[in-house]
Amino acid sequence: MRNLVAHKSCFLVLLLLLLLLFTSQFSSATKKTLNRDQPCKRFVLYFHDILFGGNDVANATSAAVANETGLGNFKFGKLFVFDDPMTKDKNYPSPAVARAQGFYFYDMKSDYNAWFAYTLVFNSTKLKGTLNIMGADIMAAQTRDLSIVGGTGDFFMARGIATFMTDTFQGAKYFRVKMDIKLYECY
Amino acid sequence: MRNLVAHKSCFLVLLLLLLLLFTSQFSSATKKTLNRDQPCKRFVLYFHDILFGGNDVANATSAAVANETGLGNFKFGKLFVFDDPMTKDKNYPSPAVARAQGFYFYDMKSDYNAWFAYTLVFNSTKLKGTLNIMGADIMAAQTRDLSIVGGTGDFFMARGIATFMTDTFQGAKYFRVKMDIKLYECY
Amino acid sequence: MRNLVAHKSCFLVLLLLLLLLFTSQFSSATKKTLNRDQPCKRFVLYFHDILFGGNDVANATSAAVANETGLGNFKFGKLFVFDDPMTKDKNYPSPAVARAQGFYFYDMKSDYNAWFAYTLVFNSTKLKGTLNIMGADIMAAQTRDLSIVGGTGDFFMARGIATFMTDTFQGAKYFRVKMDIKLYECY
Repeated sequence: MRNLVAHKSCFLVLLLLLLLLFTSQFSSATKKTLNRDQPCKRFVLYFHDILFGGNDVANATSAAVANETGLGNFKFGKLFVFDDPMTKDKNYPSPAVARAQGFYFYDMKSDYNAWFAYTLVFNSTKLKGTLNIMGADIMAAQTRDLSIVGGTGDFFMARGIATFMTDTFQGAKYFRVKMDIKLYECY
Repeated sequence: MRNLVAHKSCFLVLLLLLLLLFTSQFSSATKKTLNRDQPCKRFVLYFHDILFGGNDVANATSAAVANETGLGNFKFGKLFVFDDPMTKDKNYPSPAVARAQGFYFYDMKSDYNAWFAYTLVFNSTKLKGTLNIMGADIMAAQTRDLSIVGGTGDFFMARGIATFMTDTFQGAKYFRVKMDIKLYECY
Repeated sequence: MRNLVAHKSCFLVLLLLLLLLFTSQFSSATKKTLNRDQPCKRFVLYFHDILFGGNDVANATSAAVANETGLGNFKFGKLFVFDDPMTKDKNYPSPAVARAQGFYFYDMKSDYNAWFAYTLVFNSTKLKGTLNIMGADIMAAQTRDLSIVGGTGDFFMARGIATFMTDTFQGAKYFRVKMDIKLYECY
């Protein structure tokens, strides 16, 4: 009788175990639970872009490499390469904690809209490594999410979401974007 | 004696458990099993590209931003930016369920071959979010696979494969590609 | 009494189990352990780039599609499309085991620095598939890491790191990069 009871409880443990393992296996193969509100790492940086005008090499951080195409009135196809400083606060003169190196182009004929691919390069004594980011910058939306598709160094194999918010836009000359970096895969 | 039996079975449970956990740990670190035939989400969309000719702004959805380079006779280096409608069937006038925003360029001197990077943008009452895609469009192959490297919104953190099949090609003016979207990581 | 002992050991098993499962669940959601020194697949390939000069179609493997912008003296913004052979050793005439198809551009005003996005295309009897790679090629560093953000075919859903080392640089005409391909997610 006692033996039976002991067996029973062991059997229940076994069942529970298999159930949990099955769930865990299944989820790791196709559906994992990542909590959108709980990134494993998060920080905010400000992206400053000063467009090259032809004679301001010292200040400029980006330059147009292809002209707009004439498809609509919103610079469709105009392509820019940038090497922009990223700061912790909104002030452009603040020390850059990273560089954003990459490109963007305008891609809508009925409004301004852009597409970005770039690398955040960290190279301080505290933090070394990169985060690679790509996605649509749907400028009509107040916030828009791009994909962080990989990382290296201190961000080895990371993935996540970069949320853009336009902070200021001064004509073609200068714009600033708040980037909320959220990593959901950290290693 | 009974006690021994009970202990024995508990011990077996423990062994089995550790074995399973070890397998599961190992696989999550380096080799997971993803079944190619069982994506966690799958749908087919048609990509319609109407190249801007200079005076057809109303119809055009893409435009050349850099000229071919003269390396071979297959438009090597010619670069296009697009904002193309994606429909559920082959008919261009069908309602667009998403936009494909990005670019492609030709990259072979001995034949037509292309490379794509773009975002599928979903913005309906049913579905909001993006999928970010990049890869070689090896046009000589009947089907070719590109990588879905990230997602946002309803496709939060997704990964998968986008399989291209050229559906029709009407000179430089219009082409349509069937895109079979298969996600293997859903969250 | 015996029963109690049996129950106790079952209870311990259960506790241990739940603890392990919790750890495993937690780690699969936010922090997995990937060992940087133990990629699940690794190989080295050499990337050969011969820039098109205008009349050497037969030899050239890449071409400039946008001119430098004048922002600094290091070709800022100059954009190149390539279809480059990848070989197992340093000799350019060695059989190509893959093609690297994509683009790079220069993106620094104070020194040479580049940004790459491309696909490694494997198409042999042994190996078929692609690896998609993007990231900053920080030329001042002896080695630099780019992200392998996805794979197809025999590299289905792979992720990893591509480490670049400049092997030789003969002016604008020819350069060779050693690429150490390390996959940390294999399926």
